[in-house]
This record gives sequence, structure tokens and C-alpha cells, in this order.
Amino acid sequence: MTSAPHGEGAAGPGFWDGSASRVALLDSAVLCFARTGFHATTTRDITAAVGLSPGALYVHFPSKEAVLFEIARTGHRRALDALRAQPDDGDSRAHLRRLVVALVTWHARHHTLARVCQYELAALEPEHLATVLELRQEFTDVMRAAVERGARAGVFDVPDVNRAVRAVMSLGIDLVRWYRLDGADPPATMGEVYADLALRMVGAPGD
Amino acid sequence: MTSAPHGEGAAGPGFWDGSASRVALLDSAVLCFARTGFHATTTRDITAAVGLSPGALYVHFPSKEAVLFEIARTGHRRALDALRAQPDDGDSRAHLRRLVVALVTWHARHHTLARVCQYELAALEPEHLATVLELRQEFTDVMRAAVERGARAGVFDVPDVNRAVRAVMSLGIDLVRWYRLDGADPPATMGEVYADLALRMVGAPGD
Repeated sequence: MTSAPHGEGAAGPGFWDGSASRVALLDSAVLCFARTGFHATTTRDITAAVGLSPGALYVHFPSKEAVLFEIARTGHRRALDALRAQPDDGDSRAHLRRLVVALVTWHARHHTLARVCQYELAALEPEHLATVLELRQEFTDVMRAAVERGARAGVFDVPDVNRAVRAVMSLGIDLVRWYRLDGADPPATMGEVYADLALRMVGAPGD
Repeated sequence: MTSAPHGEGAAGPGFWDGSASRVALLDSAVLCFARTGFHATTTRDITAAVGLSPGALYVHFPSKEAVLFEIARTGHRRALDALRAQPDDGDSRAHLRRLVVALVTWHARHHTLARVCQYELAALEPEHLATVLELRQEFTDVMRAAVERGARAGVFDVPDVNRAVRAVMSLGIDLVRWYRLDGADPPATMGEVYADLALRMVGAPGD
């Protein structure tokens, strides 16, 4: 068993649960799904890339779809954890800034995995999709609560909370389409830049 | 030959050049590529959906990749045409507003086609990809010139023109991931809402 080439797409220690083989299979599947899409990826593509036999996948997962579900569920959970880890000291502006920094930094750091989480969901079975959509709803709820509170307090000037939340999240999510870790801006810089833009969008620009 | 189911994804009169069969094949390919990705789509999928024989595709295109190239090239050209059709009366703020309305309205109206143009480019052969990337560069150049001029005139407050342009375009492009024509906001409304947000991002909010 070998790790994914160049470690590209490897989610890092503690991201996936389970044995080294299971982790290697998940990292490999992320790369395969991101490169050629879920439907065009075979289980053999996933196992061959990490030097395992074709049958090895079925030791850990009942199907290729179950691999995608594990990627999508864990990916969304980890992103949600990153949001929920942000402290809230009652300052709406500072709180939203922290949330956007967390959202953007996470998506930049995990851009390959996040691409799969954004673009391959249509391949999930209905009950798996429902689970992932629940996690997405929780994610949106955290962002919406932050924008709503600032708007109610008169700190933000937001004509439509739902549209503003969608736009702030769009900004963070779209970077998974084009972002590369070897580009000009490291994840933390992306986070700061986009937090400034998000605060402008909610009508609470910096000084 | 039948048209694509429910006309979903049909680009509309005058969008594609060529015979009715060629147009039907392109509309069908857009739907297939958007649903299951380029790699998992067979030429038979494309022809069967419009009631043509498998060989019919090769009357019009040398390969499945050539179909994708035609979709990507024409899609990018039409979007660029929509930007270039916007008048410029020398008012930086009004000009950028028009460009964002055009960008967002076009991507909302053609969201299925635009999804293929955004997510399937990696499947293009190198020289075809180069052609499409040139069109994308022209598109970015139009947006950048508009932001740059407003910044130079002191109408916009933009710490970094390239990042601001990327963010404004991200906002417009990301909607192809989630936008549906049967949703709450018609394309023109999306255009107005996102133009307001874009002007806030460049530090020139409305009154």
C-alpha cells in the first residue's frame, strides 16, 4: 500500500476514522472522483492508485457509492466543526469575520475533497443525500444566525438575509473550483481577504 | 428526432450554429454532461435522448470531445458577447453594474450549459483547452478593465483589483452550481441582487 501521489488531496491526520488502508482508500477516492467524476471512476481505479487489490475496497465499504457517502458526510461534518469551533463574544461583526475566515480557510485547505463534496452529490442514494443535505442545512443555519443577529442589532445593513448568506457562502465555496495550494494566496490569506469582502457585502466594511 | 425532455438545458434559438440535428445533439450533450459528467457519458446516451441513431453524432462531430469543445467554445463566446453588448457611458459605477447584471443573468439563464463550461473543462484536449482559456481570459479582462478604471478614478475602493475581480466573478459563476429556473429568483432579479453586492464589494455601495 502506498499513499496518494504527492499527498495531493490527502486530508491529513485525524480527518478520516479507521485503519491505514481505509484512510488510504478514502484519500485515493477523493483524488479519483475530483479528477474524472464519480461515475467514470471504477473501484479498481481507487485501489490501484494506493497499491491495493481490487477486492480491498469491499473489506471497508459495501460499494463505491458508500465511499462517496463517507467522503461527503465526513467532509461536511469537519467543515461544520470548523465553523462551530469559532468563539462568539457577542460582537456580530467579529463573529461573522471569524466564521468567514473559518469557512474559506477550510475550503481552501481541503479544496480537492471539497470539490467532491460540492460537485458529486447527485450520485448519492436518496437517503445518503438526505443526510448530507441535513448537514448542509446546519452549516447554512450557523451562517444565517450570525448574519441575522447583526442585521437585527443594526450592525449589518442587509436587504435580504437569505440572499446575503447565500452570496457569502458562494464566495467561499466557489474557490474549490479554481483554488490550488501552490497559488499566490495561502488558505489563511484567502480567509482574511474574503472576510473583508463578506463584511462589505453585509454593509459593515472595515475602517 | 425529438427535442430534449422539457426543453431543460435547451440553449434557445440562434445559440448553436447548424442544422436541427446538430442543435439537438448539442442540447442533449449539455444535459448528459451536466447530469453524469463527460467521462461517464457515451455518444449513445447523447443520440438516444433525441431519438437519433448512435452513428448520427459522427455526421456532425469527429468525437465526443469535439462535442464538449463546441459546447465550451460557443458557451464562452456567447457569455463574452453578452458582456461586450453592455454600453459604457464613462460612468464606472453604472458600467460595472451593467456588466455584473449581464454576467449573472447569462449564467442564471444558461445555468445547465454554464455548469458544463465550468466543471468539465479538464476533459478537453490541450489545444482545445487553450482556446477556451483564451476566451476566459478575454472575459476576465473586460471585468478587470471596468474595476481598474473605477479604482483609478477613485469611484471604487479596492485594495487588490485582481482579487476583487475574481470575487465578483465567483459570485456570478457559483450560481450555476445551485441555480434552478423554477426557484424563487428569476435571472434578472439575480442580476440586480448580485450587482448590488458586487458594488458593495468594490466599495461603491448604492444609496
